[in-house]
Amino acid sequence: MIRVAILGASGYSALELIRLLLRHVDVKITALTTRQTDARHVSEVHPALAGRLDLRLENLSPGQVAERADCVFCCLPHGASAAVVAELLPRGKKVIDLSADYRLNDPAEYAMWYGVEHCDPQRMAETVYGLPELYRERIRKSSLVANPGCYPTSAILALAPLLRAGAISPDGIIIDSKSGVSGAGREPKPHLHFPECNESVAAYAVGTHRHMPEIDQVLSDVAGSSVRVVFTPHLIPMDRGILTTCYAQPMDEFSDDALLAILREFYAGEPFVRVSKSLPVTKHVAGTNFCDITARNVRERIIVISAIDNLVKGASGAAVQNFNVMHGLDETIALL
Amino acid sequence: MIRVAILGASGYSALELIRLLLRHVDVKITALTTRQTDARHVSEVHPALAGRLDLRLENLSPGQVAERADCVFCCLPHGASAAVVAELLPRGKKVIDLSADYRLNDPAEYAMWYGVEHCDPQRMAETVYGLPELYRERIRKSSLVANPGCYPTSAILALAPLLRAGAISPDGIIIDSKSGVSGAGREPKPHLHFPECNESVAAYAVGTHRHMPEIDQVLSDVAGSSVRVVFTPHLIPMDRGILTTCYAQPMDEFSDDALLAILREFYAGEPFVRVSKSLPVTKHVAGTNFCDITARNVRERIIVISAIDNLVKGASGAAVQNFNVMHGLDETIALL
Amino acid sequence: MIRVAILGASGYSALELIRLLLRHVDVKITALTTRQTDARHVSEVHPALAGRLDLRLENLSPGQVAERADCVFCCLPHGASAAVVAELLPRGKKVIDLSADYRLNDPAEYAMWYGVEHCDPQRMAETVYGLPELYRERIRKSSLVANPGCYPTSAILALAPLLRAGAISPDGIIIDSKSGVSGAGREPKPHLHFPECNESVAAYAVGTHRHMPEIDQVLSDVAGSSVRVVFTPHLIPMDRGILTTCYAQPMDEFSDDALLAILREFYAGEPFVRVSKSLPVTKHVAGTNFCDITARNVRERIIVISAIDNLVKGASGAAVQNFNVMHGLDETIALL
Amino acid sequence: MIRVAILGASGYSALELIRLLLRHVDVKITALTTRQTDARHVSEVHPALAGRLDLRLENLSPGQVAERADCVFCCLPHGASAAVVAELLPRGKKVIDLSADYRLNDPAEYAMWYGVEHCDPQRMAETVYGLPELYRERIRKSSLVANPGCYPTSAILALAPLLRAGAISPDGIIIDSKSGVSGAGREPKPHLHFPECNESVAAYAVGTHRHMPEIDQVLSDVAGSSVRVVFTPHLIPMDRGILTTCYAQPMDEFSDDALLAILREFYAGEPFVRVSKSLPVTKHVAGTNFCDITARNVRERIIVISAIDNLVKGASGAAVQNFNVMHGLDETIALL
Repeated sequence: MIRVAILGASGYSALELIRLLLRHVDVKITALTTRQTDARHVSEVHPALAGRLDLRLENLSPGQVAERADCVFCCLPHGASAAVVAELLPRGKKVIDLSADYRLNDPAEYAMWYGVEHCDPQRMAETVYGLPELYRERIRKSSLVANPGCYPTSAILALAPLLRAGAISPDGIIIDSKSGVSGAGREPKPHLHFPECNESVAAYAVGTHRHMPEIDQVLSDVAGSSVRVVFTPHLIPMDRGILTTCYAQPMDEFSDDALLAILREFYAGEPFVRVSKSLPVTKHVAGTNFCDITARNVRERIIVISAIDNLVKGASGAAVQNFNVMHGLDETIALL
Repeated sequence: MIRVAILGASGYSALELIRLLLRHVDVKITALTTRQTDARHVSEVHPALAGRLDLRLENLSPGQVAERADCVFCCLPHGASAAVVAELLPRGKKVIDLSADYRLNDPAEYAMWYGVEHCDPQRMAETVYGLPELYRERIRKSSLVANPGCYPTSAILALAPLLRAGAISPDGIIIDSKSGVSGAGREPKPHLHFPECNESVAAYAVGTHRHMPEIDQVLSDVAGSSVRVVFTPHLIPMDRGILTTCYAQPMDEFSDDALLAILREFYAGEPFVRVSKSLPVTKHVAGTNFCDITARNVRERIIVISAIDNLVKGASGAAVQNFNVMHGLDETIALL
Repeated sequence: MIRVAILGASGYSALELIRLLLRHVDVKITALTTRQTDARHVSEVHPALAGRLDLRLENLSPGQVAERADCVFCCLPHGASAAVVAELLPRGKKVIDLSADYRLNDPAEYAMWYGVEHCDPQRMAETVYGLPELYRERIRKSSLVANPGCYPTSAILALAPLLRAGAISPDGIIIDSKSGVSGAGREPKPHLHFPECNESVAAYAVGTHRHMPEIDQVLSDVAGSSVRVVFTPHLIPMDRGILTTCYAQPMDEFSDDALLAILREFYAGEPFVRVSKSLPVTKHVAGTNFCDITARNVRERIIVISAIDNLVKGASGAAVQNFNVMHGLDETIALL
Repeated sequence: MIRVAILGASGYSALELIRLLLRHVDVKITALTTRQTDARHVSEVHPALAGRLDLRLENLSPGQVAERADCVFCCLPHGASAAVVAELLPRGKKVIDLSADYRLNDPAEYAMWYGVEHCDPQRMAETVYGLPELYRERIRKSSLVANPGCYPTSAILALAPLLRAGAISPDGIIIDSKSGVSGAGREPKPHLHFPECNESVAAYAVGTHRHMPEIDQVLSDVAGSSVRVVFTPHLIPMDRGILTTCYAQPMDEFSDDALLAILREFYAGEPFVRVSKSLPVTKHVAGTNFCDITARNVRERIIVISAIDNLVKGASGAAVQNFNVMHGLDETIALL
């Protein structure tokens, strides 16, 4: 049994992670942490877990965590995460960081988008971006994996095959994403108050969302040249799910079938990407680690559409998938 | 034109009230108040009203309000409301109080349920309960009207005719209500965070909701004997609407038609109560001042079901209806 | 491996059943049936299952089903189900019937509520009602189990302990249930059209719902005397979940703690019933086989509230639980 | 009083139209039609209207309609609409056609997108497109107005000012729209069944939606050169509202303020377009005839976002606005 700790265990991605790990045959959850001083039982924090897990959320130091766990999932906010990760890795622990702290390679870029200096800058460039569909071999050998953001996962999985194949231009890519509200976290805020966001749809963070440079970086790596996307997230009145509609310029003439063939070839053998002629529907991936993708040629513009569950493939499912890869386990354990 | 002020104008019932009053041919809104110190334009507080009303929310004293307005709608929290009302009435203003402060007649009962002493106790017993279907004549002559709670409106309108007719027992009445989330107000709270209450239903405040003594008091008045109801509110994942399902013991044998006849006779001529053989549906009253009611006899138990929009007939629509009655206007102005 | 067939595999309970059984280590799904003539792949009927199960829905005879499967889950409509069950049992198959066909013991009662004569009446009285919390030992020895209705599960689990303990009167029980829309099935109907039932709540089938006699029968068995409940179902704008609020007369004075003690004792050791002082919330049981229950004494009336997921504990999860019991397996396999 | 008939009165746009017209001081609704043979009372078809309007839906011929009404709102399906309109105009009636029949100018284009030959082709080119913000003077003088589609209204109002000003390129415009489900009509269909589209988002009709040529035609007229847009509609789990996010290439460098200035100048004096620095939110326009618009420059791409209520500004509100313009009335009557 691999002993696992979850840091910052009070949010939605931690809840989803616990649900998944409770089904994992090789895992024993041994520690849950919180930065609050009163230790509450996990069933108080997450009533859905009553009777499932008998642990308290405790305010533990990295050293205490290291004593109890072999592998650590870090669900802390950005900034807080790197500080802890930097203390766990020297203790020989494997870490899957669900925060944004190690996703960007460039400390300056991080400082610009996150408004703070990174406390562990030298580790940024060498940390693998935890998308097994792109970086499986590097993940396999890594002690630290930067778990991708939810929007980037949906956008990168949609666009990477066509960029890699040279089928679309790296210039002028538009990414229009629609996300359920759980993606905004568990802290109550005015615009997330039920009567405000129910029965309503709006764009937010237009041109300023922190997932934009993350998408740029990974797609640039895939394309082998600089990619700067226009990314517009929208809030949808539903709990979970992201639908991402991407628009790109084709480099040649492509039929819909030709586009699907490129996607199918790229994802051949992938356990969690389903390429289909049908239009993706977030409900069909809800609660699963699947990413459904299709592509169409409309008026000489390529439209690629993907659907994921933001809490599973967009966060905790991907984290478990990375865990499985890092430990040489069957990649689908606890995820089907 | 009657000059109107709205105190505590940042919440949902104030927004609904402004929407209704903007359609009122005899009303000019002249003041909006807030207890916050920075005066914000109403379109900042309620973006839906952009271009509709050019006023700021100001922190005004009762004296300042009295200078600007002939009639005052008070949407302040309980406690805060009575303190202001007590200063407005001596200045000759008419007041419709949407808070709970003047609904209960008994200061001791108020202190018990609201946890504070009432600051204007002598006025409690003499204040009319603003349900025109029961107290129209008293409302017509009043300067102060206690606008009913949303749940009480739905329950009282359902049960009053049968109690008055002696068709049901005053003992053992059960009231099971289902409300949209706007009834819980505009302040963000954990259990009203979208991903918490969306896709979920739960009871709350079981046996402790402050609307229970309010229902008791009015139904006791109607029945001419003490009524003590069991009232259970539930939170429903929708913006607005209350469905109330009441269970009572019949005093005789009644067919469904006989029950409907009692309801129809009681509400003959009422502009905002629709008695029907069909089961009420909150969507059919959404955005309106209607209360839809039906009754059934099931296994020697009388079931009465009512539907209202909690923000209209359950709050601001009723307030405008009371306003119209108090000013001798056509009761339906701005409400159809 | 136990070979399993699912009859009537195009609906929501079949989809949920397949999802659960795909996680069952001792099960192989070998046949899916439909009464339509064109055999469609399961991923066309249930796109969520793409890549999970490579089977077609076929129009198979009972004989063909019997060849392929050891155990049969029957998700056919009432009437259609009994006709098939009667052919499978003589072939030595175990059957879990998710329809209503074998829930009632009395053919006359069945004919009255379902409007048709039962085609297999002699088997009705001897068929066990598949609620393991009440009838585990009989289920263990049965070849045919009548899987309970969703509303009855929520109501019976709430009331049975208090009736068995003599804590509440068998007379005058009121059951007010609130259900998500998936409970109404997958066939499009006007009142289930999204813009009709979204943002709305209504009662339906008041006094006429077929789950009422089912609740009567089981609670009468539990109480040892005739129970005739008043049952009112309501449709809630959410996918899944049932919250049931029960009202009963106490036979003595009970504190809340005393009521909880009765519930806790009754369900000691049960893997899927969670008794709590907290009010149940359907979201906390969504996607799980749990039933959460609490009880309160309000003004000398006992209120018992339960929450289940109508598609899991209210249908397919219960079916898998029954399957596990019937096959002598750990009751929680595929359900945690 | 202007006598008004509504043809095809059983759908959502007719319901919204009746609600609006009941508030219109100069209108009397005198006829409602249906193509069904049994005449049902409007309160049976639209229970929300109980007590509001005492009319039956009747199967009336154009001649019968012409006798009863001075002006006709036609909510019939495309194809059916033109056949009736062609009979009403020679009888001197004014007609506002909410169907698509007279929106396109070109019979060949109509035949291609709608799959049938137009029955009144010569009238197509001369019919004004009922967007008062663009064609007020022509509407004022017209007997027949083609009421715009919901998506086109949101897209055209967003893009027209910038195209007219030459601020954006007519090439490469992308329109990504998100609509509530009421836009899909009242007829139950599998993908509009509550448990299918609730808690889900998906694109549909990618590259094939009939509103695409309508947008092309009007924007081409505005731009003075051919515009061919890429239009992708998405279904959002809410009743009403459209948010449209448009992406276009700037022809020069523009600050956000410069873009807003162009929009503000274009819509100066318009009663129903609100230009704002804030991002539009569909809830803020729900139930109103407003269109909220903003624009941003993101990475040298212009993003214009608009929000409307698809049933009001996107259908029936626009129809009433057109009615007011055609009759020389204050354009805002019944709409504020």
